[in-house]
Amino acid sequence: MPAIAHPAAPAAVTILGGGLVGSLLSLYLARHGHTVNMLERRPDPRLAGAQEGRSINLALSDRGWRALEGVGIAEQIRQVGIPMYGRVMHDQQGRLTSQAYGKQDQAIYSVSRAGLNRTLLDLVEQEAGVQVRFEQQCLSVDVRNQLLEVRDGATGTVAEQPYARLFGVDGAYSAVRGALQKTDRFDYSQSYLEYGYKELNIAAGPGGTWQLEKHALHIWPRGQYMMIALPNLDGTFTCTLFFPYEGPHSFAALQTEEQVRAFFEEVFPDATPLMPELVEDFFQNPTGSLVTVRCFPWSYQDSVLLLGDAAHAIVPFYGQGMNAGFEDCTVLNELLGQLGPDWAAVFKAFEQQRKPNTDAMAEMAIYNFEEMRDRVADPRFLLQKKIESKLSAQYPDQWVPLYPQVTFSHTPYAEAWTSGQRQDRIMARLMPHIQAEEDYDRPEVQQLIAREMAAMQ
Amino acid sequence: MPAIAHPAAPAAVTILGGGLVGSLLSLYLARHGHTVNMLERRPDPRLAGAQEGRSINLALSDRGWRALEGVGIAEQIRQVGIPMYGRVMHDQQGRLTSQAYGKQDQAIYSVSRAGLNRTLLDLVEQEAGVQVRFEQQCLSVDVRNQLLEVRDGATGTVAEQPYARLFGVDGAYSAVRGALQKTDRFDYSQSYLEYGYKELNIAAGPGGTWQLEKHALHIWPRGQYMMIALPNLDGTFTCTLFFPYEGPHSFAALQTEEQVRAFFEEVFPDATPLMPELVEDFFQNPTGSLVTVRCFPWSYQDSVLLLGDAAHAIVPFYGQGMNAGFEDCTVLNELLGQLGPDWAAVFKAFEQQRKPNTDAMAEMAIYNFEEMRDRVADPRFLLQKKIESKLSAQYPDQWVPLYPQVTFSHTPYAEAWTSGQRQDRIMARLMPHIQAEEDYDRPEVQQLIAREMAAMQ
Repeated sequence: MPAIAHPAAPAAVTILGGGLVGSLLSLYLARHGHTVNMLERRPDPRLAGAQEGRSINLALSDRGWRALEGVGIAEQIRQVGIPMYGRVMHDQQGRLTSQAYGKQDQAIYSVSRAGLNRTLLDLVEQEAGVQVRFEQQCLSVDVRNQLLEVRDGATGTVAEQPYARLFGVDGAYSAVRGALQKTDRFDYSQSYLEYGYKELNIAAGPGGTWQLEKHALHIWPRGQYMMIALPNLDGTFTCTLFFPYEGPHSFAALQTEEQVRAFFEEVFPDATPLMPELVEDFFQNPTGSLVTVRCFPWSYQDSVLLLGDAAHAIVPFYGQGMNAGFEDCTVLNELLGQLGPDWAAVFKAFEQQRKPNTDAMAEMAIYNFEEMRDRVADPRFLLQKKIESKLSAQYPDQWVPLYPQVTFSHTPYAEAWTSGQRQDRIMARLMPHIQAEEDYDRPEVQQLIAREMAAMQ
Repeated sequence: MPAIAHPAAPAAVTILGGGLVGSLLSLYLARHGHTVNMLERRPDPRLAGAQEGRSINLALSDRGWRALEGVGIAEQIRQVGIPMYGRVMHDQQGRLTSQAYGKQDQAIYSVSRAGLNRTLLDLVEQEAGVQVRFEQQCLSVDVRNQLLEVRDGATGTVAEQPYARLFGVDGAYSAVRGALQKTDRFDYSQSYLEYGYKELNIAAGPGGTWQLEKHALHIWPRGQYMMIALPNLDGTFTCTLFFPYEGPHSFAALQTEEQVRAFFEEVFPDATPLMPELVEDFFQNPTGSLVTVRCFPWSYQDSVLLLGDAAHAIVPFYGQGMNAGFEDCTVLNELLGQLGPDWAAVFKAFEQQRKPNTDAMAEMAIYNFEEMRDRVADPRFLLQKKIESKLSAQYPDQWVPLYPQVTFSHTPYAEAWTSGQRQDRIMARLMPHIQAEEDYDRPEVQQLIAREMAAMQ
């Protein structure tokens, strides 16, 4: 962890939410000398029989790793992650096409949300100065009088708890944000896609082997919908079907076991034989909805701050939801170091710095949905990606494609998005001159590229 | 009221909110044969000593009049309204410029919100089948079990009230909408301008005369802010200052009596001498915020429907907030007549038909703020308005300017906005050829206009 020049005056702080971002935040705040009281609505997930929350896999990438390194726990997590070096696209005939995410050794890591949460909670409990309490349901937040109303799940009693500093990391449906929404001039939006998601499974092969390429994120792009799969340590893959709620191909249209089986055999012919529990999973697992949440401000005076999904929930298509929440911790840690004990100044600087970046990330996440479900199946798009790789190799300082900027760099999201949109405009001018990979080296194409690169300066 | 072909089966309905739209809605529903139970949070405004809600004046225009005519109460209201035939702009030297709103006899009507509400409540109480109860505060709405939790202000008791059909007309901060916001896939946004408003007053002259032109809406446009004034029956004008919260000219910058007086004397020199209570009003009246609320869906199954500000609160700059809410009643009335007793179908048709129109109205209201505070002070803009009048006179069927379409027609808002934006693009091509009013008749300008009109077909 970097040296802290002017730590905020040590004090008692309350964290509402003991999920991934809440747990990591508690470590950072404790290392700044604060006494942390962390309240989590659900039971301790490390206890036997505890219901796991969302089991969807996560893709950890560089922003997330940096935040974990900041509290010295990256290596531990990396050992249970599976590196994925690129996408493998599966077409409707079962043919495969690969596309690397970045340079040779660059990968995103498939990790289990539940496993990561348990590991973080183990670390939190070892940390002096952090107290965690489970089954603490926040019923209301009185931001004016700085009071939480909390129901204890074990005893059923409801108690008021005062707080001096409250960190709302209680997720996309945040109770803390719900209280801020009722204060004057709080901008807020929640916006749903007309798509839901359903978690499904690909079984392990004999002896816990992987039946698809292990070190890749698999995509079955089908235009208006898609399925993806991420590898697990036990040889299985966790699949997610992103699918319209209504329409000819939709959740509404698949009502019977026969309909589900026929549909999957037709559109995912190579995956379906690997999914023996398909029908049970399809009807037993809930259909999740996909929300983008934007709000501002994220703070209330010097007493409340929102972080993670509570401040900026995004759709999962860029694999950046958790990474963005973890990066919040990195940024807050830096500001606590720089601005000393002035909480109001820290909160203001934090929201000013982060808001444009998480807004950009929200847009990119929706943009990537279109790319993943539709454009990656288009040969012209794949050719364009190859040309972009060549551009990046020829002009490594000037041309970093959007995906690696988001995934393998710490460039602020808003900057990455601006440069990605500029690259899109350049590619739109370039691609009409290119019919095959080798056209890249034609003199007129090279002249055009040189002009575009000069104009980018 | 038009004949009703297939009325919805008479039933008991609950209306939450006894404001302008709630009161009018109760009349429409009662005329369809339903038994109406209307609950209002505030005390009866007709009782002595009752605190009036927002006292800001309203501008009634054709959509509002039609809705009032539908229950036979337009004439009664018109007698206490003051027609305003156009805008009068006041520049910083006190010079005046006028601009008609429409054709000679077209006017919007300045009416008192409180007076209109009282008149509507008198009519509601005379209506068989409507029961109104005041001081009924809705604490929560359980949409799944169709229960309201209501506190009675007189006794302090809290009771659960079941409902079969609930109409949420409880305004921009609707409790009904708050409950819908927590259901899955409810899109919602609340967005504030960085401007607040402050209500002020211009005194009556000797013998209750008007010290400014009575039959006009007065505007003091000042670029980044503005003041407006609407006439009252007693000779006074109600002024509203729309002003940034922060910045060099802002609420934050006016902290002392001297600062307020000096600022008003400098920027509103002709109005300030007419405002003897300026300083008291400025510091005693609250600063209101300006919110736009968008949400969807507006209904929950066949049991809940939002109308008025609860569904689509807008900023006040087009004078259409109440008119849009009243038009909701007109549209719902038509659908109840057409679709018979199928509430789910009525609610779905209502939200599908209304949503694009109120979204368009929300955009136009923000657009008009820029026009009123800034562009109306620009001679080029005023010249453009004169040219548009000539166009409208020459091509009356093809060219109806946006303001009269919104204000003096029943054209759906979305259609009006689309045609207004098309007109803006045409004017942007035309105005470079026009330096003075008489240029309109130059042959090359007339040719250009003829081409544009042909292209509009």
